[in-house]
Amino acid sequence: MVDSIRLDELSWPEFAHKIAAGAPVLLPLGTTEQHGPHLPLNVDVVLPTGVCERVARQVGGLVAPTIPYGYKSMPRSGGGEAFPGTLSLDANTFSLVVRDVIRGLGHHGVRRLIVVNGHFENAWPSVEGLDLGLRELRRDGITDMQVMRLEYWDFVRRATLDKLFPDGFPGTELEHASLLETSLMLLLRPELVEMDKVPSDGPATFPTYDCFPVPADFGLPPSGVLAVAHGSSAEKGGWLMDDHVALMSAAIRKEFGL
Amino acid sequence: MVDSIRLDELSWPEFAHKIAAGAPVLLPLGTTEQHGPHLPLNVDVVLPTGVCERVARQVGGLVAPTIPYGYKSMPRSGGGEAFPGTLSLDANTFSLVVRDVIRGLGHHGVRRLIVVNGHFENAWPSVEGLDLGLRELRRDGITDMQVMRLEYWDFVRRATLDKLFPDGFPGTELEHASLLETSLMLLLRPELVEMDKVPSDGPATFPTYDCFPVPADFGLPPSGVLAVAHGSSAEKGGWLMDDHVALMSAAIRKEFGL
Amino acid sequence: MVDSIRLDELSWPEFAHKIAAGAPVLLPLGTTEQHGPHLPLNVDVVLPTGVCERVARQVGGLVAPTIPYGYKSMPRSGGGEAFPGTLSLDANTFSLVVRDVIRGLGHHGVRRLIVVNGHFENAWPSVEGLDLGLRELRRDGITDMQVMRLEYWDFVRRATLDKLFPDGFPGTELEHASLLETSLMLLLRPELVEMDKVPSDGPATFPTYDCFPVPADFGLPPSGVLAVAHGSSAEKGGWLMDDHVALMSAAIRKEFGL
Amino acid sequence: MVDSIRLDELSWPEFAHKIAAGAPVLLPLGTTEQHGPHLPLNVDVVLPTGVCERVARQVGGLVAPTIPYGYKSMPRSGGGEAFPGTLSLDANTFSLVVRDVIRGLGHHGVRRLIVVNGHFENAWPSVEGLDLGLRELRRDGITDMQVMRLEYWDFVRRATLDKLFPDGFPGTELEHASLLETSLMLLLRPELVEMDKVPSDGPATFPTYDCFPVPADFGLPPSGVLAVAHGSSAEKGGWLMDDHVALMSAAIRKEFGL
Amino acid sequence: MVDSIRLDELSWPEFAHKIAAGAPVLLPLGTTEQHGPHLPLNVDVVLPTGVCERVARQVGGLVAPTIPYGYKSMPRSGGGEAFPGTLSLDANTFSLVVRDVIRGLGHHGVRRLIVVNGHFENAWPSVEGLDLGLRELRRDGITDMQVMRLEYWDFVRRATLDKLFPDGFPGTELEHASLLETSLMLLLRPELVEMDKVPSDGPATFPTYDCFPVPADFGLPPSGVLAVAHGSSAEKGGWLMDDHVALMSAAIRKEFGL
Amino acid sequence: MVDSIRLDELSWPEFAHKIAAGAPVLLPLGTTEQHGPHLPLNVDVVLPTGVCERVARQVGGLVAPTIPYGYKSMPRSGGGEAFPGTLSLDANTFSLVVRDVIRGLGHHGVRRLIVVNGHFENAWPSVEGLDLGLRELRRDGITDMQVMRLEYWDFVRRATLDKLFPDGFPGTELEHASLLETSLMLLLRPELVEMDKVPSDGPATFPTYDCFPVPADFGLPPSGVLAVAHGSSAEKGGWLMDDHVALMSAAIRKEFGL
Repeated sequence: MVDSIRLDELSWPEFAHKIAAGAPVLLPLGTTEQHGPHLPLNVDVVLPTGVCERVARQVGGLVAPTIPYGYKSMPRSGGGEAFPGTLSLDANTFSLVVRDVIRGLGHHGVRRLIVVNGHFENAWPSVEGLDLGLRELRRDGITDMQVMRLEYWDFVRRATLDKLFPDGFPGTELEHASLLETSLMLLLRPELVEMDKVPSDGPATFPTYDCFPVPADFGLPPSGVLAVAHGSSAEKGGWLMDDHVALMSAAIRKEFGL
Repeated sequence: MVDSIRLDELSWPEFAHKIAAGAPVLLPLGTTEQHGPHLPLNVDVVLPTGVCERVARQVGGLVAPTIPYGYKSMPRSGGGEAFPGTLSLDANTFSLVVRDVIRGLGHHGVRRLIVVNGHFENAWPSVEGLDLGLRELRRDGITDMQVMRLEYWDFVRRATLDKLFPDGFPGTELEHASLLETSLMLLLRPELVEMDKVPSDGPATFPTYDCFPVPADFGLPPSGVLAVAHGSSAEKGGWLMDDHVALMSAAIRKEFGL
Repeated sequence: MVDSIRLDELSWPEFAHKIAAGAPVLLPLGTTEQHGPHLPLNVDVVLPTGVCERVARQVGGLVAPTIPYGYKSMPRSGGGEAFPGTLSLDANTFSLVVRDVIRGLGHHGVRRLIVVNGHFENAWPSVEGLDLGLRELRRDGITDMQVMRLEYWDFVRRATLDKLFPDGFPGTELEHASLLETSLMLLLRPELVEMDKVPSDGPATFPTYDCFPVPADFGLPPSGVLAVAHGSSAEKGGWLMDDHVALMSAAIRKEFGL
Repeated sequence: MVDSIRLDELSWPEFAHKIAAGAPVLLPLGTTEQHGPHLPLNVDVVLPTGVCERVARQVGGLVAPTIPYGYKSMPRSGGGEAFPGTLSLDANTFSLVVRDVIRGLGHHGVRRLIVVNGHFENAWPSVEGLDLGLRELRRDGITDMQVMRLEYWDFVRRATLDKLFPDGFPGTELEHASLLETSLMLLLRPELVEMDKVPSDGPATFPTYDCFPVPADFGLPPSGVLAVAHGSSAEKGGWLMDDHVALMSAAIRKEFGL
Repeated sequence: MVDSIRLDELSWPEFAHKIAAGAPVLLPLGTTEQHGPHLPLNVDVVLPTGVCERVARQVGGLVAPTIPYGYKSMPRSGGGEAFPGTLSLDANTFSLVVRDVIRGLGHHGVRRLIVVNGHFENAWPSVEGLDLGLRELRRDGITDMQVMRLEYWDFVRRATLDKLFPDGFPGTELEHASLLETSLMLLLRPELVEMDKVPSDGPATFPTYDCFPVPADFGLPPSGVLAVAHGSSAEKGGWLMDDHVALMSAAIRKEFGL
Repeated sequence: MVDSIRLDELSWPEFAHKIAAGAPVLLPLGTTEQHGPHLPLNVDVVLPTGVCERVARQVGGLVAPTIPYGYKSMPRSGGGEAFPGTLSLDANTFSLVVRDVIRGLGHHGVRRLIVVNGHFENAWPSVEGLDLGLRELRRDGITDMQVMRLEYWDFVRRATLDKLFPDGFPGTELEHASLLETSLMLLLRPELVEMDKVPSDGPATFPTYDCFPVPADFGLPPSGVLAVAHGSSAEKGGWLMDDHVALMSAAIRKEFGL
């Protein structure tokens, strides 16, 4: 028997067997987006996928294929759509993808689902996709699906952040392509990280509003790294991953009574 | 420098550099769908991705992230949506995904694109997504993008098919989870294939029409294998892959003047 | 009493009476599309309508109004949208039309429906429209509608094809505006056929892929006739029509237990 | 040469020739809707099509295929969707159909278009479809298309109405399946009219508002005939048709400078 | 306790209390549209809101927030979109807004709803929004919502119109920014009316059809006042308001059994 | 002349005059949502409207009608859709409204726009609506529109927050119906605030994830007040308003060069 925590590596009878046994499914939401000159475009796919695979092992879950094209990058949280290689969907498109996948999972018997977001801007359209999917399932007579929706980076201990940022945590939005993501990539895919290319043109100094078009003095570092990536290490990535896995697993066990 | 034929493994400056140099981009279209008791759900992701990576090396191209959720499976070509683990999008959703990704590629300077379909039912909604994407690009002033769209399995020599099917080729639609796909999976991901589970309830004996709902005597093998998978081998997969890569590369070189 | 096999020629009480008695409804899907210099733009309306009317008489059915604008013509199966007079809908539009009509039929009590496609490219968006329509009907509490969906040209005996194509049948896609369609038009609407204008620039020599834009050497005959129309006759049209009517009627009787 | 005022009876070269010569195109908008026990469901297809064909002969125009499924019937103007056989589209679906057909006509060179509505409720969604179609054409660089949009029944002389309704014209909305439509059907398709079934349960006595659901005392005649059909005749239909053709032709000549 | 006939001025417990007690809700539909040089852009918001507030007091109802952006202005009934300050939604957008608000009201227990239109062109897309909203509610198991839909100006006594228009009522469509609307604004918001700017370039002399683009001789007064506003007065506004409130209240009491 | 900072209180010639002179337009985005037992449902309409009117006076701007139905309330930032009286739109609907209004403003010559959000959950769908609107305007040839998009509550001095929250600011999300909003309502609409009903069941103790459905122990105060509203005062509202107006006005002047 081919066993796997990857839903898509199972045959359909194996999938049916595990779902019938109550396995929770983790659905990672990623995107293809610039992450500075030192990181590849797939950071937001690699990281939530890696987190989900580790959590799945803890909770007896399955990881569905990661959605690789997400919602549009905004200048203040991801640099924006103008950076080469950022490939995004309209909000409605992204929400419909989430809706359809959730509807399909529900029809195939999945009753415990964790939607794990790995790209800041996906947050709201994933909420909408989830709401639309559950609405459709209710109309199809499926009313007992339980869903958690989260950003993996919110599962970190205060002490870990303090250790990582002795001078204070700059906040999630600015962490784009910075210390947290770079350290996690060094842990998971070090061959794709070029620490010698880490830029020093940050951190960003954004105003408290968006501008269209983005003015020249908007405070956006030309590198696309919004805070600081210097000092990243696989060890730090390990601290983060340990937190993400432990805290997410605990939350899932609590909510799903596992 | 991290070099890769995978678009998403590049940093944004590397991506920009390669696109500016004229690199063609291959976009694989897959899905998550039952492929019998001996194959995993990810066959239609693994195969077009594997083909694209090999073709990209031949033509100096880049492979964009594979779309992992495709259009709905139909009983006569994929077994249908009722098989556990088949996760599909509505046609409009799928077309919008293709539209948005193509629009994004166009805005980032891609002018040579090959859309490589790996799931039978994706064919028409991918045509529509492509048409919508190019329509939007024209309205955005981008009129010089060249696109090829193809099913990878159509790139095979008559002689190869004759060698594989001495008694005659049953046709593309019925080949679902059968000799061709099983052999290619044995070539690319043998650890996910369980030859001892290859069923013998085929081939399908469909009528010349669709039925909703599917009647009991519709001729659909309960295993979901529409033709015959016995006799599959990695060697046969190699014959196919050689054809796919050689013929697709030649076609791309011809159309794009490479 | 005005009696008719045309649904739209009945008054509403007559319609209600026949549906309550279990009459199956045939819904022809056509389009307005180039069919070479010798055939009118309405071939894909005339032919499925004509077939449906004859089948309706055999099975006690009703023919709903033919949808006259279908999905976009593709170069490899219909010549493409660039030919003058080809008037098509976006895929989503076409699917919504099919969805809405099916929803309406279901709400008015129709429980046996046959969707009869007469335009190659309508196939997949009609599947989607049907799926969407049945999904909505289920949500409205209507779960017992039976639907068949077919292309009329698939209902032909092997012997008939052998008689029509002594040198081998070129396949459905290439038959656009060629021997089959021309012969059927000579049977049904001979006054609209100009045999003296049958072109000789075919058959098409397409590659195994689509190209956008269509290159000059794509193998598309300038006339829009993809194979060969010489030798067409009303007699041959009669052979085809006999097959279509006999085989479709038999299939309908079988599936609907008539 | 097959000549015809029906656009869809021309071959594509003939279509191209006539459009290049400036022929205006008339697009009739119909529906499939109850019209009382004495009239068929196709009244709103037959009448605008008949008017358009006669006008086309006057102005050198072409008649495009009539859209056979229109917007939903409302109780106060058509009896409502509950009457058997009324088959309608959602407003958005109908508008998208109109949009797509107009976009197609524009891309094929049509610069003079008359959208001729034959179903009361189509009026507003046809305006929207037209607005969307012209908006898209402008974005495609086509800015010189001239369009007229009209209800054919508005083209009647005061004197004719006075002759038809010596006691006063009840107004367009209530004329559903009544004197005007019945007389025109007696002119165009008398074999589909059953004068012996003309009901006497009208006229409707509607309040000045819509109700959902329709209450029992809403004033809707059970027959679906909203005013009075007694006294209809082919002669009266002729008076109306003469007005429609003369006044519409004059208006088209004026607006398009023919 | 803050009491109010404005739904949005209540706290959620007060709202819940009143709805549980069976309060009908009035939903005014307005827009932002040119109303000549003497009236503000908000006429179609002020008037239905004012009417609804008065009716609500009569019937124990609540007034929901007025939708301030409506469907597109047409030249023959509102002057058209080209007039500065006319801010409109696509028909589908407007219908979706109406759908969503009605769905929300239904989910919160509202079972008696009156949709009160104050902008001519909103009529049909509001019907569609209502139909879509009720369809969704039915699928959510809510089948007992009663809805009335009306244009407030239809609630006027014949005698009042005769008093206001001794020479005959020109009809609703042409009354845009004319005597009725100006008089009602003088009653409700006199500080926003500039009677010295009432133009004399009307009434409009439209043909019986729409034209795109609008030709120079279309009969549209440059001021945007389609009929005549001279002679307007708050007193006349009072006559109208008295009728609107009395007749609407009576109709609501009748239909909802209050 | 009727002068006003409210766009909708101007006549169309006045609107045209001010826009031609370069007036910036402020578009407030609100919603109808529970705000605890002591505040009305219209808080998110009253507050951004009040801020915009004051800012408009500072910068010579105009305030467009506030959108009164916004995106769905989420439990962790607004209590959620289950609270009575919360009336929301689907994300796509809301984005289309924003798109259409922005497109209309652009077509009427507005080149300086500030989208002012007053409801937390509106943030992302307003970004999407803005992106869609500007995309359409570019396709219509309008490329010089400048837009700012902001949440008004982000325009506050650190010192003010320190003065308001001596024990530390709990963060924007939890401030729903709490000290900030209550104080601003006491400033703007004190008659709608019932301080004696301020609840003490907060603050919320949410986990770091969403749950569907919301579990009983989710930490959501039954009152819907997410933090603490005790201690609110009009004076504190004045401090906030002063900051909002001063900082927003300064930002607008900077970005638009006023």
